[in-house]
Amino acid sequence: MNTTQPESAGSQQNGIHSPRLIVNTLPLNAEQRGRFAQAADGIRQEFVNDTADRENMIWHAELPAALRPETTAIIGNVPPADAAQCPRLEWLQTTSAGVDRYVAPGALAEPVAVTNATGAYGLTVSEHMFALMWALMKQLPDYARNQAAHRWADAGKVMSPQGAAAVVIGTGDIGSCFAKLVKSVGMRTYGVRRNADQGAEGIDDMYGFEDLDGLLALADVVAMVVPSTPQTHHLLDARRLGLMKSNAIVINAGRGDAIDPKALLDVLRVGGIHGAGLDVTEPEPLPADDPLWDEPRCLITPHVAGGNHLAQTSDAIIAIALENVRRYAAREPFVNRRR
Amino acid sequence: MNTTQPESAGSQQNGIHSPRLIVNTLPLNAEQRGRFAQAADGIRQEFVNDTADRENMIWHAELPAALRPETTAIIGNVPPADAAQCPRLEWLQTTSAGVDRYVAPGALAEPVAVTNATGAYGLTVSEHMFALMWALMKQLPDYARNQAAHRWADAGKVMSPQGAAAVVIGTGDIGSCFAKLVKSVGMRTYGVRRNADQGAEGIDDMYGFEDLDGLLALADVVAMVVPSTPQTHHLLDARRLGLMKSNAIVINAGRGDAIDPKALLDVLRVGGIHGAGLDVTEPEPLPADDPLWDEPRCLITPHVAGGNHLAQTSDAIIAIALENVRRYAAREPFVNRRR
Repeated sequence: MNTTQPESAGSQQNGIHSPRLIVNTLPLNAEQRGRFAQAADGIRQEFVNDTADRENMIWHAELPAALRPETTAIIGNVPPADAAQCPRLEWLQTTSAGVDRYVAPGALAEPVAVTNATGAYGLTVSEHMFALMWALMKQLPDYARNQAAHRWADAGKVMSPQGAAAVVIGTGDIGSCFAKLVKSVGMRTYGVRRNADQGAEGIDDMYGFEDLDGLLALADVVAMVVPSTPQTHHLLDARRLGLMKSNAIVINAGRGDAIDPKALLDVLRVGGIHGAGLDVTEPEPLPADDPLWDEPRCLITPHVAGGNHLAQTSDAIIAIALENVRRYAAREPFVNRRR
Repeated sequence: MNTTQPESAGSQQNGIHSPRLIVNTLPLNAEQRGRFAQAADGIRQEFVNDTADRENMIWHAELPAALRPETTAIIGNVPPADAAQCPRLEWLQTTSAGVDRYVAPGALAEPVAVTNATGAYGLTVSEHMFALMWALMKQLPDYARNQAAHRWADAGKVMSPQGAAAVVIGTGDIGSCFAKLVKSVGMRTYGVRRNADQGAEGIDDMYGFEDLDGLLALADVVAMVVPSTPQTHHLLDARRLGLMKSNAIVINAGRGDAIDPKALLDVLRVGGIHGAGLDVTEPEPLPADDPLWDEPRCLITPHVAGGNHLAQTSDAIIAIALENVRRYAAREPFVNRRR
């Protein structure tokens, strides 16, 4: 552990008679710790992750038991049960976009503020989706199989994004980033969101879910980044997959259950669409005997689009956490507050 | 065969006492034939390809023996020996960028004009290179192997083009198109060409070959689209590959012999660079027992970046040929003249 200087012991800020304590589980280097110490402006901060993990950005977040009685703020996705053992907890900053485990009924006491890392994952997830799209457009799965067989063989026609139409379902940070990417290589972008009056960067035309069926019929690429809700469960079902063009590509990097996997398998088998790129599946992990693994134009990656695979993601998470530590110290409203 | 109306038999244009005859081997639909007929402006034109091949854009170019005595112009890559049997030949328009076979000493009589399809392949080749780059940045070859083994396993860190540096060696149409693509997703672009004073669209900074070594040391992506010449033979040799960063990616879609394949294998095996995407190899086809096939981060496609895999390519070739037919009829200087 590595401690920065404590607040004056007698401070009575926020009606609390003991000084605040931030437990920071991020894997940080010395320079980054210095910036967090500065942002905390005198609030005691314990850095409990190993500096050596910094290079690999291993995000194992553990909350040492000895610190729990005093902890008022946590940076990192510690187990919710451990966080619940902090009677003085005021605030938890996740390194994830999802906060379900922390805002679930009974998880943390009601007054605890929960902030997330929304915005940090737009680049990494949208780029992964973009790479899957290009691979399918250029027949790279076929060529990978040919290469494994040492076979020099032409796989035939390819597609270009030039002049093609992308339908982006879910136009938050990730969907908007994806739209900007595909727009930069010549695609026209249609967004689908609950409130169609609200635009999003990169989206040429925004529609509501009531227009989804019509948009699917014109899409060359359908990009799905919706969260898992009762409304999005099997949003792409057999009927909707049947509306799509035979050269269309589906990319899913939101939640696996937004696509009916049996219907997807069926439509791929009969060539009803060109291909699918799935970073999320139903269920996860995809069982070893799932037939989707062997579907030639289904490209599967194991829920790795997000997470901490890109240096820029770590930097963005750190920037959000730093800003909120500064706001915590200054008692200003948080950014990215989810509760 | 399908003939359009002949020039008036008595015309004595260009000092030739018989009317001109264009033999058009492109696979065209009826509407496109109509446009070529219009462009020919009364010159007789024989369409010798099967309209049914139009959809697949099969470019088999054959020159019927009966037409050879009268042929004055050929559209398409007919065998050079067949073209040499046309005593009245004035002009040959290729559907390829390369014209080596037609301008080789003795191939065609000296006065025969040769025009090519440069510009038609920029989109398809640069997009293929772009797809290979993304696949390597996002570890897709690893994931393809995991998928084949039904293995749900994280392949680790990925790269982003954001803020990265691309060095484009050869900055003609294809190199310029590739530079524009990578610039649109956040890369800085450095060009290398013989005449560094001449800029190219998409290239931020242009250098001569004398600066290549220094550029290789800063490159995240090295994109090679140089033709095969004595100067470019094994341009990327063991010494130059040794200058590159360990996370660098090499893409080659020019000519296979621009890279020393033995040196590339060696540097990949020791992790001296991150990976290579090769659409061209030395030799071609790559023999089945070549060790590059099994190199995990060498992505190989069988010289398919160009060719006729994209609808936009056919359209662009047709546009160039149409323009030159119009100019042939009007006796104006050709575009894309190579001899």
